[in-house]
Amino acid sequence: MKKVLKKTKNASKLLANLKTNKKNKILFKMANAILSQKDKILLANKIDMKNAQNAKLSSALQDRLFLDEERIRAMAKSIKDIALQKDPIGRVLKKWKLENGLKIKQISVPIGVVCIIYESRPNVTCDSAALCFKSGNSCVLKGGKEAINSNKIIAQILQNVLVKNGLPKDIITFMDIQRDEVKKFLNMDKYIDLVIPRGGENLVKFISKFSSIPVIKHDKGLCHLYIDKDVNLDKAIQITINAKCQRTGVCNAIETLLVHEKIAKKFLPKIKKEFDKHGTTLKGCDFTCKIININKTNNLDWDTEYLENTISIKIVQNVKQAVKHIDKHGSLHSEAIVSENKKTSKYFLDNVDASCVYLNASTRFTDGGVFGFGAEIGISTNKLHVRGPVGADNLTTYKYKIYGNGQVRN
Amino acid sequence: MKKVLKKTKNASKLLANLKTNKKNKILFKMANAILSQKDKILLANKIDMKNAQNAKLSSALQDRLFLDEERIRAMAKSIKDIALQKDPIGRVLKKWKLENGLKIKQISVPIGVVCIIYESRPNVTCDSAALCFKSGNSCVLKGGKEAINSNKIIAQILQNVLVKNGLPKDIITFMDIQRDEVKKFLNMDKYIDLVIPRGGENLVKFISKFSSIPVIKHDKGLCHLYIDKDVNLDKAIQITINAKCQRTGVCNAIETLLVHEKIAKKFLPKIKKEFDKHGTTLKGCDFTCKIININKTNNLDWDTEYLENTISIKIVQNVKQAVKHIDKHGSLHSEAIVSENKKTSKYFLDNVDASCVYLNASTRFTDGGVFGFGAEIGISTNKLHVRGPVGADNLTTYKYKIYGNGQVRN
Repeated sequence: MKKVLKKTKNASKLLANLKTNKKNKILFKMANAILSQKDKILLANKIDMKNAQNAKLSSALQDRLFLDEERIRAMAKSIKDIALQKDPIGRVLKKWKLENGLKIKQISVPIGVVCIIYESRPNVTCDSAALCFKSGNSCVLKGGKEAINSNKIIAQILQNVLVKNGLPKDIITFMDIQRDEVKKFLNMDKYIDLVIPRGGENLVKFISKFSSIPVIKHDKGLCHLYIDKDVNLDKAIQITINAKCQRTGVCNAIETLLVHEKIAKKFLPKIKKEFDKHGTTLKGCDFTCKIININKTNNLDWDTEYLENTISIKIVQNVKQAVKHIDKHGSLHSEAIVSENKKTSKYFLDNVDASCVYLNASTRFTDGGVFGFGAEIGISTNKLHVRGPVGADNLTTYKYKIYGNGQVRN
Repeated sequence: MKKVLKKTKNASKLLANLKTNKKNKILFKMANAILSQKDKILLANKIDMKNAQNAKLSSALQDRLFLDEERIRAMAKSIKDIALQKDPIGRVLKKWKLENGLKIKQISVPIGVVCIIYESRPNVTCDSAALCFKSGNSCVLKGGKEAINSNKIIAQILQNVLVKNGLPKDIITFMDIQRDEVKKFLNMDKYIDLVIPRGGENLVKFISKFSSIPVIKHDKGLCHLYIDKDVNLDKAIQITINAKCQRTGVCNAIETLLVHEKIAKKFLPKIKKEFDKHGTTLKGCDFTCKIININKTNNLDWDTEYLENTISIKIVQNVKQAVKHIDKHGSLHSEAIVSENKKTSKYFLDNVDASCVYLNASTRFTDGGVFGFGAEIGISTNKLHVRGPVGADNLTTYKYKIYGNGQVRN
C-alpha cells in the first residue's frame, strides 16, 4: 500500500505545476474517452447491478448504482464543465510589501493527494477524479464494493488518457481494499493530505475517529425549516413543500418543520392538505397532534435524517426556541426561516450555526452547481477549511512566496 | 468533563454575537488586570520555577517557564495589541446574486470552541485566550504541568474580568487534566470544534492520532537554506548566519544548509569562519568534510530539529536535488534559496512544498507579527484551513446567509 501511495504522492508533485491549457486539454480527452468507451462501462455496470439484485440491495441503492447512456453522457458533460472552469491554481490571493522591502505573495496551490471514500454512485469516481485533476491534486479513490466493476473501468479509462498524454497513471489511484485495511490506510498521513468521506453517518464517524489525516466530512443533512408567526402563508406553504418534497433522498431536504405556536392553528391544516397531495408521512409533537390528526413523533425522530418522504413537525414558542432546537439536533448543513419580521429573521440568521442559513427560500438551493461553483465534490459539514458546497477552488491551499534581496532579521 | 465543555460551548454562542466595542473594552480590562495583579502571577511562577529546579528541567525549559515584570508587561501589551486589531468577525468575504434573485453573502463567523494544548510558556495562556476572545471563540486551555500554577492564576484573572463584565467565565475554560484523560477529551467533537497543539513532535503526533476533532498542527520546523551556484557570496553568508544563529531555539531557524557543488569550495571555508565566530557546531556530508574539517553527519541528522546552535551541511548537484532533499526531510514550514538566477529561483519557489518559501531572505521572517497579522497563535504546519502564521483572522470560519423572497427549487 505504501509503495502505491508513494507513487501517487510523487505524481502529485508533477501535476502541481502542469499548465492550465494542458490540464484542460486532458480533461476534454477524458470526457471523450468516457463517451467512446461507454459500452465497456455499461457492461461492467450490468455485473454490478446483477450482484446488487442478488444481494437484494434497496431500490434506492440500486437506482444510485445504475448507469445508462444518458447518465454516462452526464458524466462526460460534467468533466467538460470542469475543464471550462477557471484554473483554481496559481491565483494570487493577497500580496503586500513589508517595510524592509520583502514582497509577500499568497498564492493558491494544490493540497497534494486527496483521498475520496464514497458509496454506490459510479459518477463520483469520474467527478472526483476530474475535480482533483483540475485543482492539481492526485487522487486516491475508494468506492463502495457494490460499484466495484463500474468504478474500476471508469478509473481505468481515465488513467489510460493520462498515460497516452505522457503523465503517470498514479495521478488517479483506484484502491480496491476492504474496510479493515482502510484503518491502516487512514494513518498514511505521509502520503495523503486530505480524506473526504462521502456517505452515511457511520462511515464518516469511523473515518473521523481513525484518521490521522485531516478529514472534510460530508455527512448527514438534518435540516430544519422554521415558520414564524409574522409570515406570508403562501410563501410558507410553497417553501415547505419544496424543501421537503421536491427531492426527498438528498441532504439539503428538510426533516423537521418548526412552527410558531401563534400561527400553528392556521398553518398546520393547510400544510397537511398540501403534504397529503404529495403523499408525505407526517409526525408531530403533542401540540401538533392536537391541531391535526397525525401520528406522534418519538424522541429519535428529531435526530433522524429520513432521506424519504417523511417529516416531523414541532410547535415552538418563538424564534429562540427554534434556534435552540436546531442547535441541539441540526447537522450544521442548511437551515431556513420564513418570516416577514426583520428582527426575527436577523436573530435567526445570526444565531443559527450552519453552513447555509436561508431567509424566505428553500434549503434545496445548497448545491455547488446552484451557487455557481461548477461541479461539486459534495457539501462539507466541517467548520474548518471549507463549509457548505465544495468546488475545485476549495481543493486548494496556499503558500507564501517571499521575495527579498538579502534581508535578514534583527 | 462533558458538563464543563457543554458550558464552554454554550458560552461560545453568546460570545459569537458580542459587539466589537464590547470585546475590545474587555480585552483592555484584561490587560490591566494582568498588570495590576502581577504580584499574584509572580508568586505562582516562583512555585513553578522551584518545582522545575527540583525536577532538574533543562535551562532552556526553565527559561521558557520564567516570568518577571518585563515579561508580564509584554503579556499585557500583547492583549492590548489584539484589542486594537480589526474585528475578524462579521466581514463580508464575498457576495453575489443568483439569476432567481437569491442574494448570497459569505460572512466570517467564529469557529466555536477552540482548544489549545501547549507546553511550558505561561504567556501562551494569555495570548491564546485573548486571540480566541477577539475572534469570538470560547477557548479550552490545557497547558503543561510544569507551568500549572502560573497558568491557573493567569486564567483566573482573565475569567474574573469576564464575570465582572456580565459574561460567563466559561468563555475561558482552563483544564487541569492528566495525559490519559486527554485521550477521552479528544473525542469530545460535540463540544470542541478545533484542537491546536503547540509543542514537541510527540505531543502533536499523539493528538493527531487520537483526535476525532479537527487538528491544526504546530509542530516542528525543519527548515533548509539552499545556496545556489549563481550567488552573491556576501548575501549568502549574511542570510545563512542569520537563519541559523540569530535565535537558535525557534522553529523558523534552519537546521540544514544545502550547497551547490560548484560553489562549495568557495563558500564553505568562508561560512565556516563565520560560524566559528558564533560558536556553531557544524556537521557535514562526506563531500563537505573533504572541503572543511568538521564532523560527519549521521542519517538521523537530516531529520533532526536541533533547536540549538548546530547545523548539518550537504552538498547537492543542483536545485532539483535540493528540492528532493527538502521534499524528503522538510516539515512544510519555511525554506529558502539564495540565488541570482531567475530560472533556478522560480524552480525552487514553484516546487518546494512549504508554507513559506523565500528567495534571498532569511527564514526567520516566518512570524505572525512580522507578516503583519498582529499577535499569533503559532505557525501552522497544516495544509488545510490555515498555513504558516496563524492570527485572529484564521480562527474564523464562515457561513452563507441567503436572502430570498419565496424562491423554491425547480
